[in-house]
Amino acid sequence: MSEIRFIEGLLTELTPYVRERYAARKTLSVATKSNPTDLLTEVDVEVQQRAQRRLQSAYPDDLFIAEEEGLGLLPDDPDRRCWIMDPIDGTQNFVRGLFPAFGISLAFVRGGVVRAAGVMLPITGDLFLAERGQGAFRNGARLHVSDVDRLGHAWIEVDYGTQTKREETLRLSANIVVQAGAIRCVCAAVVGMCSIAAGDLDGYVHVGLNPWDYAAALLIVEESGGVATCADGSPLRVFGPQNGVIVSNGRFHEELLAALGRE
Amino acid sequence: MSEIRFIEGLLTELTPYVRERYAARKTLSVATKSNPTDLLTEVDVEVQQRAQRRLQSAYPDDLFIAEEEGLGLLPDDPDRRCWIMDPIDGTQNFVRGLFPAFGISLAFVRGGVVRAAGVMLPITGDLFLAERGQGAFRNGARLHVSDVDRLGHAWIEVDYGTQTKREETLRLSANIVVQAGAIRCVCAAVVGMCSIAAGDLDGYVHVGLNPWDYAAALLIVEESGGVATCADGSPLRVFGPQNGVIVSNGRFHEELLAALGRE
Repeated sequence: MSEIRFIEGLLTELTPYVRERYAARKTLSVATKSNPTDLLTEVDVEVQQRAQRRLQSAYPDDLFIAEEEGLGLLPDDPDRRCWIMDPIDGTQNFVRGLFPAFGISLAFVRGGVVRAAGVMLPITGDLFLAERGQGAFRNGARLHVSDVDRLGHAWIEVDYGTQTKREETLRLSANIVVQAGAIRCVCAAVVGMCSIAAGDLDGYVHVGLNPWDYAAALLIVEESGGVATCADGSPLRVFGPQNGVIVSNGRFHEELLAALGRE
Repeated sequence: MSEIRFIEGLLTELTPYVRERYAARKTLSVATKSNPTDLLTEVDVEVQQRAQRRLQSAYPDDLFIAEEEGLGLLPDDPDRRCWIMDPIDGTQNFVRGLFPAFGISLAFVRGGVVRAAGVMLPITGDLFLAERGQGAFRNGARLHVSDVDRLGHAWIEVDYGTQTKREETLRLSANIVVQAGAIRCVCAAVVGMCSIAAGDLDGYVHVGLNPWDYAAALLIVEESGGVATCADGSPLRVFGPQNGVIVSNGRFHEELLAALGRE
């Protein structure tokens, strides 16, 4: 089985469990991590463990990198085959919120490059899939970024993230907040980036993410015609140094980069 | 028929049309109003016209105030019976966006005070209803605000609105963005305020809204135990001077007001 079919199967298999726990979310046990709003639920842990078991069985020699439970390690050998997962990206939105803006994210990486990727939004049932060089799809329909070509008309998500990054995000995004056509903040990287791939959003700004937050969505955006860089304009990579995650449909990326504040 | 039953009936009646047009939104004709991202669709106009016809038939002597088509007038006689509607609050989200964060808003006002109110989120089918002194309900279930009691743990929506208000919003909200537990920006006042009523959000900040944006949601929030004021702490009223719309669950409202920036 190809990696993309494995991703499709696994994300589809995990979805009913997540939907069921979301429906009963008032009864969830919720723990906090680095601060009072950095949340971890039993669902994050269970999804990750189920995925890990399936991956160990299907690909016993591959490395598994994931957000929870000490699996947030980068490979010693950059050429190694590895899988990068965020079991629930947008855990806060899972726990609270009228709109279910969270997703399961899984990417297959070889040689430091994402080769196949999937993001499932369990409540809407939207499954985004991409293979390098083969395009990106939502529920089988080919995706294309929007044709918005200037910041003043663009919908931009400024992802304010957790409290520890808020001052820096304010500085980075102040000009963009003033100049953009519309500002949104949903705070789930996979949702923001897949929205760009689908043409529903034009740009996304974050001061810095972990590989599991964006690895899968990065390929989905690129295969839809979008662009992702660091704040200095260098290409966004899965491993290695990173200062900021700046994503757009590629039609006003230079203008977006130029508007980033650096007080 | 009581006003609240009229509201319930009308919002329910309008919903299938809005759902149908949302599903076919790629084919909508969209016009711009004050700036490129201040949008008006045929759906806003049609919903308002349908409501106006039903109200004129049921309450021929009442004033009808609404967002579109020159109906944005305030009553000469503040004691007059009037109905205040936003046919689609969150038109931008209607036109774009993975999540359907928009609503139909209708309030009945007498003596300058909202007496009965309804907000329908057409895609989820959530109907929020409130009568003064009788509590607020979502789909028949009584609503209560959250018990979050400090800004550092609170989910706050900062509504950045249209471009013309962006600089002022940045100044007003900068401290809140740094201090709050979580920041969101969905940009539909009825969704933000009804989320507070439902306990899914703890606060909402806007530099200034029109009566049709918040009249219905104001009563729904208050009847759920929440508080709405201007930026100076004075009560938020439907008509009259207004500087800012600051809404919370009432448990950290002073702290929220104190954090408002006034550079």
